[in-house]
Amino acid sequence: MSNINISVDCVVFGFDSDLDLKVLLITRNESSDSFDTGKDHVSLPGDLIKYDEELDPSAQRILKNLTSIDKIFLKQFAIFSDPNRVKYLKDQAWLNTYRAAPDERVITVGYISLVNIQDFEPDATFFDDHIEGEGTRGGFYEKCWTKINEIPQLAFDHNQIVDTALEFLKKELNHQMSSILLPKNFTLPQLQKLHEDVLDKKIDKRNFRKQILKEGVIVKTNATTKTGKKGKPATFYQFQDDQNL
Amino acid sequence: MSNINISVDCVVFGFDSDLDLKVLLITRNESSDSFDTGKDHVSLPGDLIKYDEELDPSAQRILKNLTSIDKIFLKQFAIFSDPNRVKYLKDQAWLNTYRAAPDERVITVGYISLVNIQDFEPDATFFDDHIEGEGTRGGFYEKCWTKINEIPQLAFDHNQIVDTALEFLKKELNHQMSSILLPKNFTLPQLQKLHEDVLDKKIDKRNFRKQILKEGVIVKTNATTKTGKKGKPATFYQFQDDQNL
Repeated sequence: MSNINISVDCVVFGFDSDLDLKVLLITRNESSDSFDTGKDHVSLPGDLIKYDEELDPSAQRILKNLTSIDKIFLKQFAIFSDPNRVKYLKDQAWLNTYRAAPDERVITVGYISLVNIQDFEPDATFFDDHIEGEGTRGGFYEKCWTKINEIPQLAFDHNQIVDTALEFLKKELNHQMSSILLPKNFTLPQLQKLHEDVLDKKIDKRNFRKQILKEGVIVKTNATTKTGKKGKPATFYQFQDDQNL
Repeated sequence: MSNINISVDCVVFGFDSDLDLKVLLITRNESSDSFDTGKDHVSLPGDLIKYDEELDPSAQRILKNLTSIDKIFLKQFAIFSDPNRVKYLKDQAWLNTYRAAPDERVITVGYISLVNIQDFEPDATFFDDHIEGEGTRGGFYEKCWTKINEIPQLAFDHNQIVDTALEFLKKELNHQMSSILLPKNFTLPQLQKLHEDVLDKKIDKRNFRKQILKEGVIVKTNATTKTGKKGKPATFYQFQDDQNL
């Protein structure tokens, strides 16, 4: 029998008012006198699934436990099955404190999540880890929205998981996804910057406006913002589909 | 710990000279005097992965073991994680003869495969099953290309896996995929029937020809077939990308 542990890891993308595409990372902070091996253990929100749990509900549960983020867009995008993915020395000390069988193989299912960042401000979340045969440990998760070009070295293969999620987003970016990442009312520069961040390239402003308006998926609203450059108010747009919401 | 078994199941699609989209199914036949519980056990080619094996190579290995099909297009399309997916009564008798721990949970990763059916004629494949703690059992696999609208009740959740693979193919069908399923030289009616089978709808002949020729991805060859209707020879086409192969 294969008898492998299964985990889920969530790559939560957010797009903030500074117009930056960010990923939500977590760091475990031990509560008081306990070990501090988790200090540099920055990772994606993720954990083992339970023996009797289906993957999608498990991803929702784990994300909620670790970040308080609930009921959001979550989609499987890849599976990471390198037999050595949890065996790096840098991770073993951490795993030894958290798992009853730290050497056992773990296959992880990557989930991509999109949120409007303003709805999910980072704060500390108390966690309550039950380790089979070893009782319970508690502590806090620090959460941090991190620019995609400033992501540090992460635990396990999480850097590779983020890169794969970005590739997925690049390939799949569509109006539904954009509308989740952006506020309901957005400006053309916001929409353009989102596309530039995801596609990782500069886009010609004039061509972008022409193309996006030609597609007819966004519509002008009557609202304007006074923060437009050169004192000229910027126009807000909405996705056509959002008009009737 | 979750300690779950991981398997892969392969949905191998082929498109034959009768212009039908088919799926490769297998039935285990016991060699001689042994049990015959496998008689009605028709399933997708699939098996548990090994403890130290990555998913993609595992899928290639398992498909080769069960069908002799080697080195083909194989792509993960979904994961099936219902905790009860191997617990149906209809499957338990079969599992009891094949697995050391038949009640254990199995999560399966679905792989989609595309082949030109003429290269893979069905024949019986000898199998050699090693069951942990129980020695080895041998027998034959019967393989059968089955029309997608004539698929019988399959083992476990394999009908659902086939349906999901078809949905995936429907969404992802592109020229690369079509070129794998079709012979190098094909007729427009062949290409149209492939699209009709995958999309599960009739397509207007005139519109289809107009659209596909406008896209410029296929080119006319000098070859013709004498089997065209009304005695008029049909023209063969090739995908533009195949021209330089």
